[in-house]
Amino acid sequence: MNGADALLATLRANDVTTIFTNPGTTEIHLVAALDHVPEVQGILCLFEGVATGAADGYARVTGRAAATLLHLGPGLANGWANLHNARRARTPILNIVGDHPDFHRLLDPPLNSNIAALAGALEGWHHRFTGPNDVAAGTAAALDAAYGPPGQIATLILGSDVAWGEVSGATGAWPVAPVHGATAPSGGEIARSLTALRTKRTALFVGGTAATAEQLALAQRIAGATSSRVIMETFPAIFDHGAGVVSPERLIYLSDFAVAQLRDLDAIILLGTTRPVPPFAYEAGPNSLVAENCEVIELAPPGIDTLAALNALLEGTGASPLTMESGELLAPPTGVLNAQSVAAAIAATIPEGLIISDESLTSGLHLYAATQSAPPHRVMSLTGHSIGFGLPAALGAAYASRQRVLALEADGSMMYTLQALWTMARESLDVTVVALANRSYAVVDLELRRVQSVTGLASQRLIDLDDPAIDLTALARAQGVPSVRVTTADELVDALRRSYATPGPMFIEAVLPKGLG
Amino acid sequence: MNGADALLATLRANDVTTIFTNPGTTEIHLVAALDHVPEVQGILCLFEGVATGAADGYARVTGRAAATLLHLGPGLANGWANLHNARRARTPILNIVGDHPDFHRLLDPPLNSNIAALAGALEGWHHRFTGPNDVAAGTAAALDAAYGPPGQIATLILGSDVAWGEVSGATGAWPVAPVHGATAPSGGEIARSLTALRTKRTALFVGGTAATAEQLALAQRIAGATSSRVIMETFPAIFDHGAGVVSPERLIYLSDFAVAQLRDLDAIILLGTTRPVPPFAYEAGPNSLVAENCEVIELAPPGIDTLAALNALLEGTGASPLTMESGELLAPPTGVLNAQSVAAAIAATIPEGLIISDESLTSGLHLYAATQSAPPHRVMSLTGHSIGFGLPAALGAAYASRQRVLALEADGSMMYTLQALWTMARESLDVTVVALANRSYAVVDLELRRVQSVTGLASQRLIDLDDPAIDLTALARAQGVPSVRVTTADELVDALRRSYATPGPMFIEAVLPKGLG
Repeated sequence: MNGADALLATLRANDVTTIFTNPGTTEIHLVAALDHVPEVQGILCLFEGVATGAADGYARVTGRAAATLLHLGPGLANGWANLHNARRARTPILNIVGDHPDFHRLLDPPLNSNIAALAGALEGWHHRFTGPNDVAAGTAAALDAAYGPPGQIATLILGSDVAWGEVSGATGAWPVAPVHGATAPSGGEIARSLTALRTKRTALFVGGTAATAEQLALAQRIAGATSSRVIMETFPAIFDHGAGVVSPERLIYLSDFAVAQLRDLDAIILLGTTRPVPPFAYEAGPNSLVAENCEVIELAPPGIDTLAALNALLEGTGASPLTMESGELLAPPTGVLNAQSVAAAIAATIPEGLIISDESLTSGLHLYAATQSAPPHRVMSLTGHSIGFGLPAALGAAYASRQRVLALEADGSMMYTLQALWTMARESLDVTVVALANRSYAVVDLELRRVQSVTGLASQRLIDLDDPAIDLTALARAQGVPSVRVTTADELVDALRRSYATPGPMFIEAVLPKGLG
Repeated sequence: MNGADALLATLRANDVTTIFTNPGTTEIHLVAALDHVPEVQGILCLFEGVATGAADGYARVTGRAAATLLHLGPGLANGWANLHNARRARTPILNIVGDHPDFHRLLDPPLNSNIAALAGALEGWHHRFTGPNDVAAGTAAALDAAYGPPGQIATLILGSDVAWGEVSGATGAWPVAPVHGATAPSGGEIARSLTALRTKRTALFVGGTAATAEQLALAQRIAGATSSRVIMETFPAIFDHGAGVVSPERLIYLSDFAVAQLRDLDAIILLGTTRPVPPFAYEAGPNSLVAENCEVIELAPPGIDTLAALNALLEGTGASPLTMESGELLAPPTGVLNAQSVAAAIAATIPEGLIISDESLTSGLHLYAATQSAPPHRVMSLTGHSIGFGLPAALGAAYASRQRVLALEADGSMMYTLQALWTMARESLDVTVVALANRSYAVVDLELRRVQSVTGLASQRLIDLDDPAIDLTALARAQGVPSVRVTTADELVDALRRSYATPGPMFIEAVLPKGLG
């Protein structure tokens, strides 16, 4: 048995059964090994950014790691931006990066580069296999690292000599990575939190593992009993939403508004996430979202057990059970297509259990409020702010869950990783894509207008996407995904309903007013 | 004047007039500055891999650096693979990567990452501006580093506070990077080379700066006078080719064949490139292309003056002027479309001065021989073996030269950076794309067959690109590039002729037999 076969056998023993990949020569033994280990599936992606984003989506909806198989340094680099998003989501991912043998790297062949430096820049865990006999233990160690908690990116560098080399004395007993529970919150932080809840204007700041229906309800009960607020982070990795699920206020993306939102707080208790910070620095500030005298209590940052923390607070506050008012289901919108009617159309048609991959950016502003009373669903968001996440994550989520996924895509973002559409078609995945075509980098436009009141032709030309206009439906159809263009809310509602009723992927281009609308 | 304006002013003073970019919030002051410095053009690309590949193509055909403007770590990562190709081509490129101010990085906002580590992995030069007053000097130092010789990747990290910060005492006198000539070859290596040429079976191994018509002719004269051989590296950054240009034998890509090609040599003299090595390691070898007792003489590796080296050898050997036999111009092919007839069709239609961006991989095997007697032209090739190079490099070359560029693309490779087509349409660039559609990663297939004689379904599914088949012409048309599908050699000849006669881009899908054909 060679190293490649041992690697797949160890993945199988650890229930890692999916590898999103674009392989090359250095990975060829692992490709061949897929013929020997049928329980592990290789899913071909036409670009590595699709593979890594798919692994992220897979793990966000299942909690289980998927693997990627990447072609040396350039392959890892192509997948890096979506690994950045995954890192910020604390998603467990296992990268396997093929490389030349050490003796060959000394010759500095054309594809040689410093893979360890690229992996190291992901600030997770990485390891170069020392030989075929290191493969099983190294793979288990990587999975141990990937799962944390919190989850992180683990990267294995697999020299081709390790892949083809003979494993000595393989017994068929492959090591299984231990499953670690999250660490219990400290008594001191619990006491501090209870004091704040009783005596200060306090918010529970929830995200990460606390963004489930169960934990959001606990947070709401605690807040209700103590006249506190629950605020959800701007971009949780995945959160429950819809009827029967608490919909806390969400931290506003734009810093000036976020400062106003948090201004009156004397204490913020972290649950599943870190201290709120401005996404960008501005010449005129603000440099902090949190008021100067506001206490930030690190009750359960990532890696600490948020459920245990919430239960401890519940006990300490004696909160009573929650009575949820059932919200009103919105009627399907008609008429003009804009950010509001898109949100209403989605809200009116959501099937129970839908997973939304949300990369709608400026066009998706109204979505969260509009979908509060829709059937229960889950939403993945753009944790690392690196565009090109939505389509790949939808692909991975649909493959893993075998449930319908709705990918909400800004047109500029979707062009980053549009190759994901091909794999959706190839694997007949139940993905509905709604491309929100405002033919502009509207977020960047917003920032440009802060810097200069009158925009010149040269700068505006780096914002506009309508010269030439891109036929998004044709891009989807060319890759095997049926597609339609809609220009009214009625048409969008109709297209969504048809897609949800039809197995396989479908692409809907929603033509919006240009730019910020 | 702020740092962003000072940066553009310094670029202008150094004749760096083009910035290929996809900018975001951290780069917004540089975007705004484009409205103040009209001599510097910002060219929008829909993905950073397009921007970096375009900068590479621009510099290969002009010898002058272009800049890129990239959005923090993810932007640099997205552009990294084509920077790898540029690094291997020794292309001078100036990356400007926007970042948060240092005080903001301490908060670890969502887009924060280790940009210096990513830049460092390119093994070139990088620097983080220390403040607005460092901008002019830092930019000049970066260009000094980028030009070498040999050329390399220089990366400047521009905190947004540096971009918006006031430059004190700007006088309008911007520093200009010095132009360094290549180092003269050493007398010892010249003597060693002359001895080898006189006494041993010797090859001049040429590439890099030696791949011009002038220097190839010098090499051929020296070889003729000494019964030596001239061998060109497999993938030169850019080389002259066609009627009146010496066409040396080219180092074969497949290692087993390359070993046979070099077996009889007792000495190899390096001119503009490095020692030939196998692109990949194999279990059964070979581990070296060069025979064990073959002397490798480092007369003029990259950074050493190849023209001076060749002139010194010419003087030492007393070679006489070259008489070139004029080759026969091939008649346009008819009938079946395959790798041979594609090469013949291209050869029969090449207009003088054409620049070919060659990412044809297995489908382009016959091109070099077929085009020997075509009108003089230049060819850029895949120096770093990282696919996704061809379309972006064609874009940059066409923008820089305002000459017709022919991009020869394998279908699998073109899917990596297909967004380049949009910028070709937007800028009305004279690019003819021939997409060689064999619906397979044929190179990988070749390697898989070395590893296992019978390919299983699981592994074959990672090679084949025909489920579903991609409508390449639709992908081009959707992005504003007129396109046509051809299925015979006659149709290809006709489409090429029409494209060369028509300003602006055109996309031709050439349908080939599947896989290795």
